[in-house]
Amino acid sequence: MNRFTEPEIAALYRAMRERRDMRHFLPDPVDPDMLTRLLEAAHLAPSVGLMQPWRFVRITAPALRREIHKLVQAEKTATAQALGERQEEFLRLKVEGILQCGELLVAVLMDRRERHVFGRRTLPEMDLASVACAIQNLWLAARAEGIGMGWVSLFDPVALAELLQIPAGAKPVAVLCLGHVEAFYPAPMLELEGWTRRCPLQDLVFHDQWGNTKAPA
Amino acid sequence: MNRFTEPEIAALYRAMRERRDMRHFLPDPVDPDMLTRLLEAAHLAPSVGLMQPWRFVRITAPALRREIHKLVQAEKTATAQALGERQEEFLRLKVEGILQCGELLVAVLMDRRERHVFGRRTLPEMDLASVACAIQNLWLAARAEGIGMGWVSLFDPVALAELLQIPAGAKPVAVLCLGHVEAFYPAPMLELEGWTRRCPLQDLVFHDQWGNTKAPA
Repeated sequence: MNRFTEPEIAALYRAMRERRDMRHFLPDPVDPDMLTRLLEAAHLAPSVGLMQPWRFVRITAPALRREIHKLVQAEKTATAQALGERQEEFLRLKVEGILQCGELLVAVLMDRRERHVFGRRTLPEMDLASVACAIQNLWLAARAEGIGMGWVSLFDPVALAELLQIPAGAKPVAVLCLGHVEAFYPAPMLELEGWTRRCPLQDLVFHDQWGNTKAPA
Repeated sequence: MNRFTEPEIAALYRAMRERRDMRHFLPDPVDPDMLTRLLEAAHLAPSVGLMQPWRFVRITAPALRREIHKLVQAEKTATAQALGERQEEFLRLKVEGILQCGELLVAVLMDRRERHVFGRRTLPEMDLASVACAIQNLWLAARAEGIGMGWVSLFDPVALAELLQIPAGAKPVAVLCLGHVEAFYPAPMLELEGWTRRCPLQDLVFHDQWGNTKAPA
């Protein structure tokens, strides 16, 4: 009786299967009540020691959005240079939809995290893991509601923190483009564009020790 | 037409609302086909530059499970000492179900991640964010399938890497207890036990700049 009904289970797997990292958006606004539901979904995420380290900055000022776009453009150039021989190929990809999307959020790791020791003494980065779980909840909820989302991590976190007056100790980790879309990509865009391929799951699951892909008899 | 049906949307939100970080398990085994579905759900997660940095080690040897339990016990003691005045309160909490759960997985960040620059030049930790998204998918899928999961991060990653022959450059980030449960907690266990409380969402959402909780008119 702990199990959901078959249609409920199917709906969940559908959201996971059809969720995409979107870069193409329609300009239509996102309904504010829906945005609240998406943020509530994020806030339902698990967190290490229940520290709830996620903060969201909603960008409403057009000038601020343009400044964020500039930061991402600068990092796109820097990344292209760092990529060496794949530079040209990378520059042809659409890596963000910041100026087109209906809503722009910045997800931030809260400040004063050092007070939280539970589950983080040897793995302090678990706070980021919690924020990522929150973002994944938001992403799946957006997909079900018919809203596309793209997680952009092409930016200098120090410059973005300064722009949003984020205090020392806190750190922006995601620029989230949200909005209506013409259609969701049928597969990950980086796969459609030939950037890379999905790995077979069986290559990623080991048994009792690293590299052992053979299940015990 | 991008929007799911209302029952589908409701099912997704239900999974998010009823998902719990579980520490109490029944000993019954998890069906192998179901475990495969859960791992497939994890593998549907987004990843930075589609790098798919997640690896899973399935623990089948009872001796290995006991060794992992020992590592976690050692870290529980070290964490209790680090917590100072909340030491006693922490030691009363059940923080893992490693010896009871039907399935034990270790989630690992793959090795040779430095080759992946896309989306990580300024934020190399995005690989962990991707693994966390995969774990959140697995968690939600498990909840819908009626299976409990607990993410344990109380361990020394170096010692756990050695135990599982994980190569230099790769890093274990989660011990995942999976299994049937009597019942899911009605609220997060750390809230029920009085360890901490949920924050109101409106305190965590800012407008255009950090700390500004007032939406523009």
